[in-house]
Amino acid sequence: ASGAAYSEEASTDPDHPPVAAGSLALVAPALEKYRKETLGGDLWQRGALSPRDRSVVTFAVMIARNQTAELGQQVAFALDNGVKPAEISETITPLAFYSGWGNAMAAVNETRHIFEARAIGTDQLPAASPTLLPIDQKAEDARAASVQNNIGPVSQSLVDFTGDVLFKDLWLRPDLAPRDRSLVTVSALMASGYVGQIPFHLNRAMDNGLTREEASEVLSQVAFYAGWAAAMTAVPVVKDVFEGRQK
Amino acid sequence: ASGAAYSEEASTDPDHPPVAAGSLALVAPALEKYRKETLGGDLWQRGALSPRDRSVVTFAVMIARNQTAELGQQVAFALDNGVKPAEISETITPLAFYSGWGNAMAAVNETRHIFEARAIGTDQLPAASPTLLPIDQKAEDARAASVQNNIGPVSQSLVDFTGDVLFKDLWLRPDLAPRDRSLVTVSALMASGYVGQIPFHLNRAMDNGLTREEASEVLSQVAFYAGWAAAMTAVPVVKDVFEGRQK
Amino acid sequence: ASGAAYSEEASTDPDHPPVAAGSLALVAPALEKYRKETLGGDLWQRGALSPRDRSVVTFAVMIARNQTAELGQQVAFALDNGVKPAEISETITPLAFYSGWGNAMAAVNETRHIFEARAIGTDQLPAASPTLLPIDQKAEDARAASVQNNIGPVSQSLVDFTGDVLFKDLWLRPDLAPRDRSLVTVSALMASGYVGQIPFHLNRAMDNGLTREEASEVLSQVAFYAGWAAAMTAVPVVKDVFEGRQK
Repeated sequence: ASGAAYSEEASTDPDHPPVAAGSLALVAPALEKYRKETLGGDLWQRGALSPRDRSVVTFAVMIARNQTAELGQQVAFALDNGVKPAEISETITPLAFYSGWGNAMAAVNETRHIFEARAIGTDQLPAASPTLLPIDQKAEDARAASVQNNIGPVSQSLVDFTGDVLFKDLWLRPDLAPRDRSLVTVSALMASGYVGQIPFHLNRAMDNGLTREEASEVLSQVAFYAGWAAAMTAVPVVKDVFEGRQK
Repeated sequence: ASGAAYSEEASTDPDHPPVAAGSLALVAPALEKYRKETLGGDLWQRGALSPRDRSVVTFAVMIARNQTAELGQQVAFALDNGVKPAEISETITPLAFYSGWGNAMAAVNETRHIFEARAIGTDQLPAASPTLLPIDQKAEDARAASVQNNIGPVSQSLVDFTGDVLFKDLWLRPDLAPRDRSLVTVSALMASGYVGQIPFHLNRAMDNGLTREEASEVLSQVAFYAGWAAAMTAVPVVKDVFEGRQK
Repeated sequence: ASGAAYSEEASTDPDHPPVAAGSLALVAPALEKYRKETLGGDLWQRGALSPRDRSVVTFAVMIARNQTAELGQQVAFALDNGVKPAEISETITPLAFYSGWGNAMAAVNETRHIFEARAIGTDQLPAASPTLLPIDQKAEDARAASVQNNIGPVSQSLVDFTGDVLFKDLWLRPDLAPRDRSLVTVSALMASGYVGQIPFHLNRAMDNGLTREEASEVLSQVAFYAGWAAAMTAVPVVKDVFEGRQK
């Protein structure tokens, strides 16, 4: 995927998600139909989740699964849908830790082309070391104790990095709302099949404002972009979270 | 991976699977040996699964795992092995849903180069909206009831998309035989580690004509192209399916 | 990723891991900070695992997850950290089988650029068919019996390939120490979420000299390069292995 193609192909029509220009008709005409009718005409139009949130979920899924073929176009589409450049940046940053450094590097490369094509400068990006959000010390103490108990006997360095780098720093960065940061993480976990890590982060997303209706719809967005098996595998875990919150 | 290289490197020798021309000897001579002797001289020659079916499995695995490095060459090799262009197209199409949209887009890009190099025109591709195969209403009712019961309380939209887009449309497309469509799905699930979804689709493949001997051999083909861990992880689930069908 | 970029960007500074030159500051300044301070200034400096071993783990993770964006640069960094060209080659070779042929082909393509830029010729590579290490026949008999018992009823060809290609050939290749070969496999399994396959290979790695302290630190290295979820998912399995060895 070269940078030049992105600016030609980048969507400026918020009603239609991106497409590899011209290729679908030459290889899989059915996918052209599904793109227009099912994705553009149905999924992205559904009110249960805003186009802006759908872009956040889709971008996170593509980073998590290293799907670079359409990643740049999804960045352009996300900007069209109202995701701010700083939020794009702050979506890539946590996924360097949750999906792996190499996944984030691929996303950086693709995003750079779009930022350049749209003349998005570093003045629109978050500072490397901003003033952090205040920590919820009680919740952090509970989390730290749980991780120390479960992970400490196996890898103290993993415990320390989890606290120092993630929860006392990364999670407190201010340029992505806590609800969105958790939504990014949940989407990436669903996309990668790591269901055991979903409850903590989905509860956190819902504690920070993600509604049950939105969480339900995230599953459909993940189904289309990470594959049906990823969504289906996540369903029982999401069900447990929903039930746990009703008690 | 650029398009030019594919036409130079595309195999026209059905006895030998593709290779990144020249690179193996310069980096990993052992892999050159394994390619010739183990893949070309053994795996692809085994009678338990036809070269045509091996190509279908391998192509599905590479889409599911986003392995683009050799994907174009495997398209060329599949054509050499008798997979029709329409079947290539109809292998990518369902995996847009089972492995995620971005995986299919990468496959579309790579396949386009091969179709162009071989002058395969849109007249050889399936229609976007063909006359669908008749639905087995009884089986569909049972499937729909099960999904409604299990998924409905979590995401009604996922239930609806599963019925409307997948089982009442995608699965009824006529240009890939039902046995092959299930084989594609099973291969992709095995390649991605989604073992919980295998029983439904493997039973469906065997109901539609995939023999037990062929299913056993699919595991070996998956082992080589998705990795041993993927195949080994699928073994207990395949065993359960085999035993369930003997009762 | 083009070859030209790698030689420009390849790290020659063992204190700092590679970076996509210039891109981080233009997209995610926070990742530039984390790269310098957390990766370069902390993780790679920790004495619990040598830089050479960290490079082996990181390279294996990137192959297993098909993270090509920084793969070439990690090859250059691995060479800087003392990993021999023959060991690079022998890391790719087993992962053709453990992570899938297509993953290895991507690694071959990226590695070729670095080998060419550094004038590493085929005289520095392992022979395709070297004199193999002696086999531990008792351990091999136990392994073969277990696999025959578990896998034989499902796929005899998978049993046969596992013995003939992997354990009587691949695992006996002499140009990567048995401890390192197992470390490569463990890293790839952790990176891919195949936790069921970890105990056999982690025990093998520790039987061949990997210390518990090193294994603990592998989890942190995997966390950063394969993502936190991969490491967290592996923790309970590693814990069981550690406890099993204390008895």
